[in-house]
Amino acid sequence: MSLLLKEIRHNPMLWLLVAVPVVFVAAALVPEAHTALFVLSVLAIVPLAGLLSHATESVAAKTGDAAGGLLNATLGNLTELVIALAALGAGQYTLVKASIAGAIVTNTLFMLGASFLLGGLKYHLQEFNRASARLQAGLLFLATIALLMPSAIAGMESTSAAAATQKLSLGLAVLLIVGYGLGLLFSLKTHREVFSGAEHEEAEEAPWPIGLALATLAGVTVLVALVSEIFVESVQKAAEAFGMTAAFVGFIVVALVGGAAEMASAFSGARKNRLDLSVGIALGSASQIALFVAPVLVLVSYLIGPSPMDLQFWPGAVVMVLFATMTAMFVTNSGRSAWFVGVLVLMVYMIFAMTLYILPPAGQ
Amino acid sequence: MSLLLKEIRHNPMLWLLVAVPVVFVAAALVPEAHTALFVLSVLAIVPLAGLLSHATESVAAKTGDAAGGLLNATLGNLTELVIALAALGAGQYTLVKASIAGAIVTNTLFMLGASFLLGGLKYHLQEFNRASARLQAGLLFLATIALLMPSAIAGMESTSAAAATQKLSLGLAVLLIVGYGLGLLFSLKTHREVFSGAEHEEAEEAPWPIGLALATLAGVTVLVALVSEIFVESVQKAAEAFGMTAAFVGFIVVALVGGAAEMASAFSGARKNRLDLSVGIALGSASQIALFVAPVLVLVSYLIGPSPMDLQFWPGAVVMVLFATMTAMFVTNSGRSAWFVGVLVLMVYMIFAMTLYILPPAGQ
Amino acid sequence: MSLLLKEIRHNPMLWLLVAVPVVFVAAALVPEAHTALFVLSVLAIVPLAGLLSHATESVAAKTGDAAGGLLNATLGNLTELVIALAALGAGQYTLVKASIAGAIVTNTLFMLGASFLLGGLKYHLQEFNRASARLQAGLLFLATIALLMPSAIAGMESTSAAAATQKLSLGLAVLLIVGYGLGLLFSLKTHREVFSGAEHEEAEEAPWPIGLALATLAGVTVLVALVSEIFVESVQKAAEAFGMTAAFVGFIVVALVGGAAEMASAFSGARKNRLDLSVGIALGSASQIALFVAPVLVLVSYLIGPSPMDLQFWPGAVVMVLFATMTAMFVTNSGRSAWFVGVLVLMVYMIFAMTLYILPPAGQ
Repeated sequence: MSLLLKEIRHNPMLWLLVAVPVVFVAAALVPEAHTALFVLSVLAIVPLAGLLSHATESVAAKTGDAAGGLLNATLGNLTELVIALAALGAGQYTLVKASIAGAIVTNTLFMLGASFLLGGLKYHLQEFNRASARLQAGLLFLATIALLMPSAIAGMESTSAAAATQKLSLGLAVLLIVGYGLGLLFSLKTHREVFSGAEHEEAEEAPWPIGLALATLAGVTVLVALVSEIFVESVQKAAEAFGMTAAFVGFIVVALVGGAAEMASAFSGARKNRLDLSVGIALGSASQIALFVAPVLVLVSYLIGPSPMDLQFWPGAVVMVLFATMTAMFVTNSGRSAWFVGVLVLMVYMIFAMTLYILPPAGQ
Repeated sequence: MSLLLKEIRHNPMLWLLVAVPVVFVAAALVPEAHTALFVLSVLAIVPLAGLLSHATESVAAKTGDAAGGLLNATLGNLTELVIALAALGAGQYTLVKASIAGAIVTNTLFMLGASFLLGGLKYHLQEFNRASARLQAGLLFLATIALLMPSAIAGMESTSAAAATQKLSLGLAVLLIVGYGLGLLFSLKTHREVFSGAEHEEAEEAPWPIGLALATLAGVTVLVALVSEIFVESVQKAAEAFGMTAAFVGFIVVALVGGAAEMASAFSGARKNRLDLSVGIALGSASQIALFVAPVLVLVSYLIGPSPMDLQFWPGAVVMVLFATMTAMFVTNSGRSAWFVGVLVLMVYMIFAMTLYILPPAGQ
Repeated sequence: MSLLLKEIRHNPMLWLLVAVPVVFVAAALVPEAHTALFVLSVLAIVPLAGLLSHATESVAAKTGDAAGGLLNATLGNLTELVIALAALGAGQYTLVKASIAGAIVTNTLFMLGASFLLGGLKYHLQEFNRASARLQAGLLFLATIALLMPSAIAGMESTSAAAATQKLSLGLAVLLIVGYGLGLLFSLKTHREVFSGAEHEEAEEAPWPIGLALATLAGVTVLVALVSEIFVESVQKAAEAFGMTAAFVGFIVVALVGGAAEMASAFSGARKNRLDLSVGIALGSASQIALFVAPVLVLVSYLIGPSPMDLQFWPGAVVMVLFATMTAMFVTNSGRSAWFVGVLVLMVYMIFAMTLYILPPAGQ
């Protein structure tokens, strides 16, 4: 417990934890103050995501390489998953889908671009492991093809009845999860030497004892779930107040909030000239969303949602995810980076954000 | 003749030749048994395609490098061409177009992916000639851009009258064949050293004498043509019985059946750690379909079809062919492969197949 | 002045300058002879563009590296800019947009492809600086994503009201110009060593004295502007006479005419086995159109146009620009070229031209 407090004292981001009790009190006292609840829940999720990430790494460090890698890979996007589950339970499928597409785009463009820019402002030219980056970009590309295929095709056909799309989404979700499992077998077992280096250097600080880590993992997950419910309830009304659509909030705001902890790691890696780490976190996290989080949400929607959720995204999201992964493939292909590469990648992200803000998808 | 019999005895695939007489007898006796005729004609085409492929290689081996290369390049997809001609004569343009798009996708995804997987299950990491693979992937990419351009553009414009699309398709067909001829000049004459190695290692077994080879070539082509007619007649009704559309049958079934012989060569190359061979067969075959078979079918449609055929594919086919060639470009770019790369490429193929099965193109 | 005359005497292209007075006289005497005026104005712009290009280089050579680079980068597409401004003033937005998209496509496909072909006919294999080409292709790719995003997304959404598209285009124009400025800072200041070599070898002939160069720059710009007005007035009617649409004229004719001077440099570089130069001119010019010329036209349309211009291109243009930049990325990725690569790139260009000629965009 004192370790937890020490961590909190030394990490300014964790001071935001004060927003956690505040948001619960506020939700009980002024349930109609949607804008305030929205801001407070965002502020509360950021430090919780940081704790969750640290706890996951600590458990992973204790359980050894293979199991730890599996844990990291599965729980690495736990925050995004919990928020999306809350939105799923509330039947807000637009928000869920926007947060899936947005997390992929934000990780590949914002996290990668800002890493390149921050690193490039300090170092003239930065190099990173081409082979590993290329493999991860490839996984990401194929994963997004898989994820987007039904939207890309169904969107153009007139016969795409809702029932068929639903059936296809279910089949694809199963296929993606099988692919994800085989990918873990590949990267953690049969070909782990290709991926080594990048993944585990992250844990610089002494890991927590296993008991504390497990307790934090459990406790914080519950807290994130509770805060997420307040977030999801308030987001619609708050978005209207800020002039934002549910698609914009899911695509940009949820993705930035849910990924805050990983971004801190990626940016810190870039500033230490360890771009392998940054590229690994950004692309790895993005493919995990596509291959694991998205299909899990489809499967879970049969259990907790008001109706099953399909994988049909609005056309703009399809275009953005595709361009984002193509950009990631291109900029990681050379294994070298400079500040302007970061600027260009961030520009693409800003263009997406601007487009979504000004031209929201129809009917949302 | 005894050589032919010896070949048949040693190659289990050729035992399927028994289906050839059976399908003719069945077609004469029970012309209404569409499902049985469909299955029998598929079983009959597979070994015939194998014989055709072996005969072509034998003739090519006898006629020397340049002429042999030309022959291999022109007759390499003879089975696909003959089946498509049968469908063309019957006016089944959806089936023809589906089999063109499907052959490109099946060669680049299924043949390549299964080669990577089969090779990767035996060897930890496999390397292949990057320069040659890149060149072939580039030809394929540019060829499919050429092939898809009218669909990609015309599909989006409201003024795309059928007559204009027809005119454009004719012009493009001529352009593609000119490009194909120049490509042969390039790969067989001016820059053959870049492509050397991969192409001719294929013929391991002693080639047949030229007389037997030519007779087999002629005789088997006639047999394929006759079986194809039964296949095309039965496919529509049989597909309905299996719950498949003409698009699915053309895209998946015809492509797998027509390419069976090449697949056997590509897979055997991968198991012998000669991925150059597998990549060369897969990508070479795919670009040949795009640059030669497709435009020949357009030109022939003016002679034998009920009306001229254009090159306008349904939107889903355009997306699939594009994604397939982009995948091929990406996975062959590094010159290295492992089993999971094969899994991912095959996953994309399964996603396409699943999508086509569940969400068939409108009006088919 | 004698230097200018000497240049004219030695450069056959400049003999076309005789068309300049002729077109002014013709415009005054026979203002209804649209076809003749169109042909004459095209003939007049080609040599003027050549002079403009030489004058810009001479001024750049005198003012030192950084300022000279800035000048070259800003005035390199002055001809295209002046023609587009004339069309903008006349409210011909289809022509303006077609000439933006066409200049990108023509520079990346025709200029690059013809350079590869011309060089390849003389040299068996040509090599060029991969790193620099890749960086330029990357800038181009990201620039076109930026430029096309509103069209790609807005075209698919039903809520894309004109006002929102206009607002988005204005925001994007500002963003693109900021990106362009940062790109100049990158290539001329912080990372000039990456781009060095290719840019300045161009000026082989002795540069003009600064006074002559500045006077030529000013005088010829005025002449181009005047001729452009005649061109823009006559193009619509002349295009009809030739059976061409405004989109075809802008996309193909204006782009070829406006880029004639740069093409002469690029082709001459290729024939001297200096493909770095050719690739640099082709891709640099294309990204300059996307990042600088296009947004400047949007901003200027608020001042001189009848109404503000947005960045929404017709769908076919979006597809063509995307495929063109993907082709450029692919063929420059290996750093090697042979004649057939040029043939394939030119084939893609011919396919685009053929498609535009036969299937013009709706309503034009």
